[in-house]
Amino acid sequence: MSHPAASQVQADLERLLPLLDARLTAAFQGGEAVRLGEAMRYSLEAGGKRVRPVLCLLAAEAVGGRIEAALPGALALEYIHTYSLIHDDLPAMDDDDLRRGRPTNHKVFGEGHAILAGDGLLTEAFRVLAEGPGDPAPRLEALSLLAEAAGWRGMVGGQALDLEGEARAKTHRLAKRDGLKGEAQEGPSVGETLAHYDLDHLRLIHRLKTGALLRASLEMGAILGGAAPGERQALRAFGEALGLAFQIQDDILDATATDADLGKRAGKDAGRGKITYPSLLGLEGARKALEEATETALCQLASLPNRTSLEAWARYLAQRAN
Amino acid sequence: MSHPAASQVQADLERLLPLLDARLTAAFQGGEAVRLGEAMRYSLEAGGKRVRPVLCLLAAEAVGGRIEAALPGALALEYIHTYSLIHDDLPAMDDDDLRRGRPTNHKVFGEGHAILAGDGLLTEAFRVLAEGPGDPAPRLEALSLLAEAAGWRGMVGGQALDLEGEARAKTHRLAKRDGLKGEAQEGPSVGETLAHYDLDHLRLIHRLKTGALLRASLEMGAILGGAAPGERQALRAFGEALGLAFQIQDDILDATATDADLGKRAGKDAGRGKITYPSLLGLEGARKALEEATETALCQLASLPNRTSLEAWARYLAQRAN
Repeated sequence: MSHPAASQVQADLERLLPLLDARLTAAFQGGEAVRLGEAMRYSLEAGGKRVRPVLCLLAAEAVGGRIEAALPGALALEYIHTYSLIHDDLPAMDDDDLRRGRPTNHKVFGEGHAILAGDGLLTEAFRVLAEGPGDPAPRLEALSLLAEAAGWRGMVGGQALDLEGEARAKTHRLAKRDGLKGEAQEGPSVGETLAHYDLDHLRLIHRLKTGALLRASLEMGAILGGAAPGERQALRAFGEALGLAFQIQDDILDATATDADLGKRAGKDAGRGKITYPSLLGLEGARKALEEATETALCQLASLPNRTSLEAWARYLAQRAN
Repeated sequence: MSHPAASQVQADLERLLPLLDARLTAAFQGGEAVRLGEAMRYSLEAGGKRVRPVLCLLAAEAVGGRIEAALPGALALEYIHTYSLIHDDLPAMDDDDLRRGRPTNHKVFGEGHAILAGDGLLTEAFRVLAEGPGDPAPRLEALSLLAEAAGWRGMVGGQALDLEGEARAKTHRLAKRDGLKGEAQEGPSVGETLAHYDLDHLRLIHRLKTGALLRASLEMGAILGGAAPGERQALRAFGEALGLAFQIQDDILDATATDADLGKRAGKDAGRGKITYPSLLGLEGARKALEEATETALCQLASLPNRTSLEAWARYLAQRAN
């Protein structure tokens, strides 16, 4: 990472994480369902870089808005991100035992409580946005955008396609093998046709599964920060490209890093024959695609006056090691 | 059921169900995640009496409000009720194969898609409320109330306690057996003390698990219908008592009806040693408690001008056969 970007990211984290961390778990103290509260706090306290809430707050600042107005949106984003990890890790989904270096939620609290902890976090996301503070109209608009991004036309839909994709990948490999066997060498090979199909499908899954919430993080920050229409559009486009870059880097890390680097099982995508950017484009091709997506993201920021932090985050996320 | 109540309920259903049914599944047409859309529609189309959305619409009418203003609230309530059934039926929770006479969602679409279908429905509930139509302020207030009722301090919390309760019930039966063995007969027996504890705990679970959403149905209708504060309070209290009556009747039906009556497995609570009103109060005691709760509910309506339908529904729900 270039040093100016790293130190800007560090400064942003030191400034913003204390605001977030204190509030994130405060909502889940007390209550009748003690063990459920514990389960929700467990996953919220696992930490991480809080990328989505920080981007939401920085987007609000980038258009001259106040941090306080964007805070409910930032909390809502982290609740939704955390719930999605808990549900993704379940045995019926990705079946992961380790997350951020700790046992996954269902390993500690059992599957039933892990499902409910996810449900509780998802519900709380909308409660915290509905309760304010600030003008009701932009909060309602941000809430609607978040629900669209997190729902069946966004993140949840992407996760469903991803689940189906693992089965589909197997079918394709069989089709390639059988198709190529008897095929004359004219026109694009069945293998090439399938690779194109796979790349489009991979992009669709990522645009929904990871991209939608990242894009929403920036657009919600814009709305809650009182952005002008052009600024909101720029932040939306920035989020779109950043989401793509983020996912490519995720795939590259899965293929190249160790378990200890990631705090979770590395190489698991390849291990289960999942389609990834490196598996489709090769490692160098994936790195080139990452660079392009990052440049596209940076271009969108040109019109914003306070763009230093978002630029640094875009560079940082493309070069992160976990 | 008395005939006037039955025919009023029938008339309300004929008037309101067409409004609801057409809109409920319309949100889940098209989209990229085809199979997920199918899974969500499957459970929405299973039908049922749509008790919560109908009560929401009737509450709005009871205070002189318009059906159209309350419709987003009614849809949101049915999405949340449906998601809660899908997740409750999962193997890690109640592990049910049959619901409303059809295979449960995970039996048809697999556990992964059932979890995601629930997540998608929960998210859509907030989207439909956020998108209106109508004045933003009451919608935001209704949304906040719904999130509170459906979340970890409400329905989801109740479900967690219920899960823990099955384990707890086992422990208590062991404690009773061992305690009574060596106990002298003075003061309340360990058995009696535990029964009191169990009844309080049972009430708490039901107040959260079933009561919170039913109460919210009526209060959301009040808010979206433009109720005066006193009317809103009356509908809230009506919902509270109705929720209790509803749950007692549910327990009675589980103990007395057949699978065919219920469209799901009857006697399953008793079968797994779950604490229920009949198991704690006896069948006659439970019927008396049901009658009292229904009377309490009816008393709350005295001040409302358009109360005929809600009165009929309270009588009907206490006497329903499934």
